Amino acid sequence: MPTALSKPVARRADAVRNVERILDASIVCLQRRPSATMAEIAEEAGLGRVTLYGHFASRPALIDAVVSRVLAQGEEMLAAVDLKGDPRTALAQLIRNSWQLVDQSRSIISAAEAELSPARIRQLHDGPAARVEALVERGRADGQFRKDMPTSWLVAVLHQILHGAGGEVASGRLDPADAPERIIDTVLSVLDAR
Amino acid sequence: MPTALSKPVARRADAVRNVERILDASIVCLQRRPSATMAEIAEEAGLGRVTLYGHFASRPALIDAVVSRVLAQGEEMLAAVDLKGDPRTALAQLIRNSWQLVDQSRSIISAAEAELSPARIRQLHDGPAARVEALVERGRADGQFRKDMPTSWLVAVLHQILHGAGGEVASGRLDPADAPERIIDTVLSVLDAR
Repeated sequence: MPTALSKPVARRADAVRNVERILDASIVCLQRRPSATMAEIAEEAGLGRVTLYGHFASRPALIDAVVSRVLAQGEEMLAAVDLKGDPRTALAQLIRNSWQLVDQSRSIISAAEAELSPARIRQLHDGPAARVEALVERGRADGQFRKDMPTSWLVAVLHQILHGAGGEVASGRLDPADAPERIIDTVLSVLDAR
Repeated sequence: MPTALSKPVARRADAVRNVERILDASIVCLQRRPSATMAEIAEEAGLGRVTLYGHFASRPALIDAVVSRVLAQGEEMLAAVDLKGDPRTALAQLIRNSWQLVDQSRSIISAAEAELSPARIRQLHDGPAARVEALVERGRADGQFRKDMPTSWLVAVLHQILHGAGGEVASGRLDPADAPERIIDTVLSVLDAR
């Protein structure tokens, strides 16, 4: 019975396409203005508000999906970093790539901070956090990184310094060109074995 | 003409009293739940919603006033710290007192992060930031703190580490009893002259 089968399949394909369009439109709108409304996003996607709300019941639910997608795309870039070799060199490269992601997603980060809880933001960063954690652990085993503080704390400090740099750039106190090396220097000041 | 004069004066006194009641009620409600609504706050204050909105046109406006008040109260505690003597010792004491404020205001900080822009949050912290800045400058002049990074960056890093510790405590990864010394150690790792 092809009709009975094909209808839900076609509907499912439509839904997947609509979700993609909504996420693309959200990124465009939020980059223009972090407080972009659901109505603006629906318009940018060329869809009705009913369709938008059918997929994302609320703005926080949509922002959550946008952040998940941006982080998933970032994962590809971070996964390409060579984490073997000297842990300090590898960490520096990981920070350079992470900074690029933070820098180009500043508006989306603002929207996320306004709409999602810190606990949820942390949870969405589990992937990148695990990568940094493994590298810090290796640097500790090598004797290059300090062991007098838990790895989870050192990773949290790195995250805070990276995102703090975003705020400093946004407010004009830090030249974006100086940001990556400044972050690396600061993070290594914390991590270096004493 | 006492009536013509006393009426606006009485109205003004009422208004001041109502604002105080609203701010007190907001602190109670937000500490119970950072997402407390305007309706809940009006009820806690024993005032109508019209009166509440008459004083604070929106939730962000109210949260802004709450944060200003909490920071002003914190100022009294921070102003009492002796900033003379060894800059490292003074900074450690300033961090201990600041941490106490961050720790007891965690719900209000959550509400602020959800409702106010990072730029506005930074602006509200101008007072405490100026105090830390002056102390860091003195430590740099003494040769105890590093001079290869701007003071504004070092103050921003301190702020990020302090607030990051709040998140780590909230998520159970950091024992609140360990927080102040952990923050001090980490901040001094960044600030110490090389």
